[in-house]
Amino acid sequence: MPTKRNHASGAVIDKGGLSESQAALPAEDASRFLDDASRRNFLRRTGTLTGGALAAGVSLAGAAPLIIPESNQSFGKPIAEDDYGVPSKFEAHVRRRRTDVLKNRQNFSDWSMTPLQHQHGIITPNGLIYERHHNGTPDIDPARHRLVIHGMVKQPLEFTMDDLMRYPSVSRFYFMECSGNGLTDWLKPASTTVQQTHGLLSCAQWTGVPVSWLLDEAGLEPGAKWVAFEGADGAGHTRSMPLKKVLDDCLIVYAQNGEMLRAEQGYPVRLFVPGWEGNVCVKWLRRIKVGDEPWHFRSETARYTDPMPDGMWRQFSFEMECKSVVTRPSGGMTIKPGMHEIQGFAWSGNGKIRAVDVTVDGGATWREARLEEPVLDKCLTRFRFPWNWGGGPATIASRAVDSTGYVQPTVQDLAKVRAIVGFVQHNNGVMPWSVSAAGEVKNAIG
Amino acid sequence: MPTKRNHASGAVIDKGGLSESQAALPAEDASRFLDDASRRNFLRRTGTLTGGALAAGVSLAGAAPLIIPESNQSFGKPIAEDDYGVPSKFEAHVRRRRTDVLKNRQNFSDWSMTPLQHQHGIITPNGLIYERHHNGTPDIDPARHRLVIHGMVKQPLEFTMDDLMRYPSVSRFYFMECSGNGLTDWLKPASTTVQQTHGLLSCAQWTGVPVSWLLDEAGLEPGAKWVAFEGADGAGHTRSMPLKKVLDDCLIVYAQNGEMLRAEQGYPVRLFVPGWEGNVCVKWLRRIKVGDEPWHFRSETARYTDPMPDGMWRQFSFEMECKSVVTRPSGGMTIKPGMHEIQGFAWSGNGKIRAVDVTVDGGATWREARLEEPVLDKCLTRFRFPWNWGGGPATIASRAVDSTGYVQPTVQDLAKVRAIVGFVQHNNGVMPWSVSAAGEVKNAIG
Repeated sequence: MPTKRNHASGAVIDKGGLSESQAALPAEDASRFLDDASRRNFLRRTGTLTGGALAAGVSLAGAAPLIIPESNQSFGKPIAEDDYGVPSKFEAHVRRRRTDVLKNRQNFSDWSMTPLQHQHGIITPNGLIYERHHNGTPDIDPARHRLVIHGMVKQPLEFTMDDLMRYPSVSRFYFMECSGNGLTDWLKPASTTVQQTHGLLSCAQWTGVPVSWLLDEAGLEPGAKWVAFEGADGAGHTRSMPLKKVLDDCLIVYAQNGEMLRAEQGYPVRLFVPGWEGNVCVKWLRRIKVGDEPWHFRSETARYTDPMPDGMWRQFSFEMECKSVVTRPSGGMTIKPGMHEIQGFAWSGNGKIRAVDVTVDGGATWREARLEEPVLDKCLTRFRFPWNWGGGPATIASRAVDSTGYVQPTVQDLAKVRAIVGFVQHNNGVMPWSVSAAGEVKNAIG
Repeated sequence: MPTKRNHASGAVIDKGGLSESQAALPAEDASRFLDDASRRNFLRRTGTLTGGALAAGVSLAGAAPLIIPESNQSFGKPIAEDDYGVPSKFEAHVRRRRTDVLKNRQNFSDWSMTPLQHQHGIITPNGLIYERHHNGTPDIDPARHRLVIHGMVKQPLEFTMDDLMRYPSVSRFYFMECSGNGLTDWLKPASTTVQQTHGLLSCAQWTGVPVSWLLDEAGLEPGAKWVAFEGADGAGHTRSMPLKKVLDDCLIVYAQNGEMLRAEQGYPVRLFVPGWEGNVCVKWLRRIKVGDEPWHFRSETARYTDPMPDGMWRQFSFEMECKSVVTRPSGGMTIKPGMHEIQGFAWSGNGKIRAVDVTVDGGATWREARLEEPVLDKCLTRFRFPWNWGGGPATIASRAVDSTGYVQPTVQDLAKVRAIVGFVQHNNGVMPWSVSAAGEVKNAIG
């Protein structure tokens, strides 16, 4: 898809160029279009409320009385004595699912994906936060769990969960994304739905203790530069992290969205690294070791490295760069001609979302979408854009710009600076969805 | 408990008086105390990390190797094909619970309360959002559900869920509180825990359509001033709402915290009235009728009215006024001498939280707590305050000030302007917790 603003990964481009493609409809007008002209008579223009649809039964003033539903005439389910609620049985289709492209024969080292096409707002409910494990989910008793800090520290420390939870805490909203999100769909379509193209992405409010406070407690030795984090799972998943980032904003997290971590999210305690790839947010955290260089663990050599055009592999590519995706309409849906609100998410591991542009003509023209408040640092931001679909073939996509000025690239641009071979991580390319004349929405990557 | 700043419900007092009681430790110093002096060596000062606790096993460099837990040596639970996650089995004590003070023999018209003492951050997970029903939870098929708008409108309208969900949407973070929250604990202690004193309170990101858009679609007749909202439950719960508020910020909500409403929260659609009492947020919404005066439904005469000192009853007291509560430490906990972080929530139906003061001496002195960002309009705000408990008897409480300047009153102040007889609603009084020399934390209201 043609585009004027995209560029290769990592570079920073000023957003001044935006104005030309938006000359016909500046951002302010786009907002007004959505809020007044567009939404006024929105339903009439969608065709769902044309004369015929307004049956006699809609007015109590008319001859036919309003139907009293069965639920108004019967007892409901009583309140339980001791209860934890679950979704309505009519929402059983909204589930985490494994990919349908790379299905492992085992499912211990596997992943399940968040149904983004069904997510409203920026919070991913805890039951739907994506999973990625290297040897399944351990079952850890918090009363017996210990977290140790050692290595280049003045005083090695051991923490019980009670110790950690008596400490002052902070709660912050952050997205979390697997570096492998999108690896099945680089240059040709493989996955059907946005759950399968982008569902290794979730967002929550995370609660815990800054790692810096605990390291301050232990006392860093001179020369300390890297920190290893190790999980208590069967894979012993372990990552090296630069001390600078650890001290900057990393958290020892024990709660998400108001309650203790789910087992599959690292219960009772995990590392959380804002804006960086999910796999460094080591779950079931049991050990923090301070050192002066990275350890080159298996997850830093065999996994989580990026092939480059010169045949070398890039290590420690932690940041999740600026990205966005349209979730409605998205792959697998069928739409009807008329007014639609295009919706989606944008996020950046390097800051806040500054703007999102949307195209409905495959990148020939772009217009600015509306961002929903609050727009938070390293957090999902929701965008929306009104679209009156005439019924002809169309290609929809979004591209995000973050507070550093970085513009989300196309996969074609990324392919110029990366080698797209094997299971390539860090695909933050623009994601196009095609709409056929029949209204079928399909993956149109490449 | 003595206090200089409290006053009767409804009045507005400027917050200028704060400075005198804070002369010894202004707000800025309190923050520094928390962030530097306090948290540095926090654990050492709590006594949990004194010399003896640092066993040999904490250092890999020592003779005794770090114990490798069983979870590191075994397979975990594999990823499920089609999954909706649930909390760890070790969190089974974190549940919604009925009150232990006013236990109904039936539980169709009943409530269950959010375990606020276990809530981290401002989001209440969907499984723990409080319930209050008048005839249980109906089981409604969204494909068959209809929402009707009629009465003083130019064109009566009927909406399917598909119609509503094709409409542009907004997502907003708001608290929700039952007007009866606190009714068992006005002037003497009855409930034990904060779940039972304050647990008819939750907070979520709500997604839906502004009611104003739908009324605009239907077209208001001249003279329209009130709007009735009716539920599809067995009680046919119905409330009259002033049109001004409805047009201002009320939402037709179909999702909470990222997913469709839970059945007990009104699935598939409810009214949400930001900042007003929970019972007007009519669940299982099936009918909106526009009129020129209130209807005086049963929930506006027999229920949800407030006795006044002159023997009259106040109707339509919708606003949930500024309030706060300490959740840690709170009733039923036992604490040890040393450093503690006092934590709690503050909220106001009339705006944002401007400040929260905390006392640890029963109201003799108050100091300003730290508010956690983001501080949002009509949303829970989390506060925290460092406290070095010496081991003597203490009484802890918080009082909030909102963006209108209103200061949370004591129950004694409220009792001067209201009649405290029967099941009295709208208790937003300061909530004190006593701490005995043995560290037992108890309800100290009155």
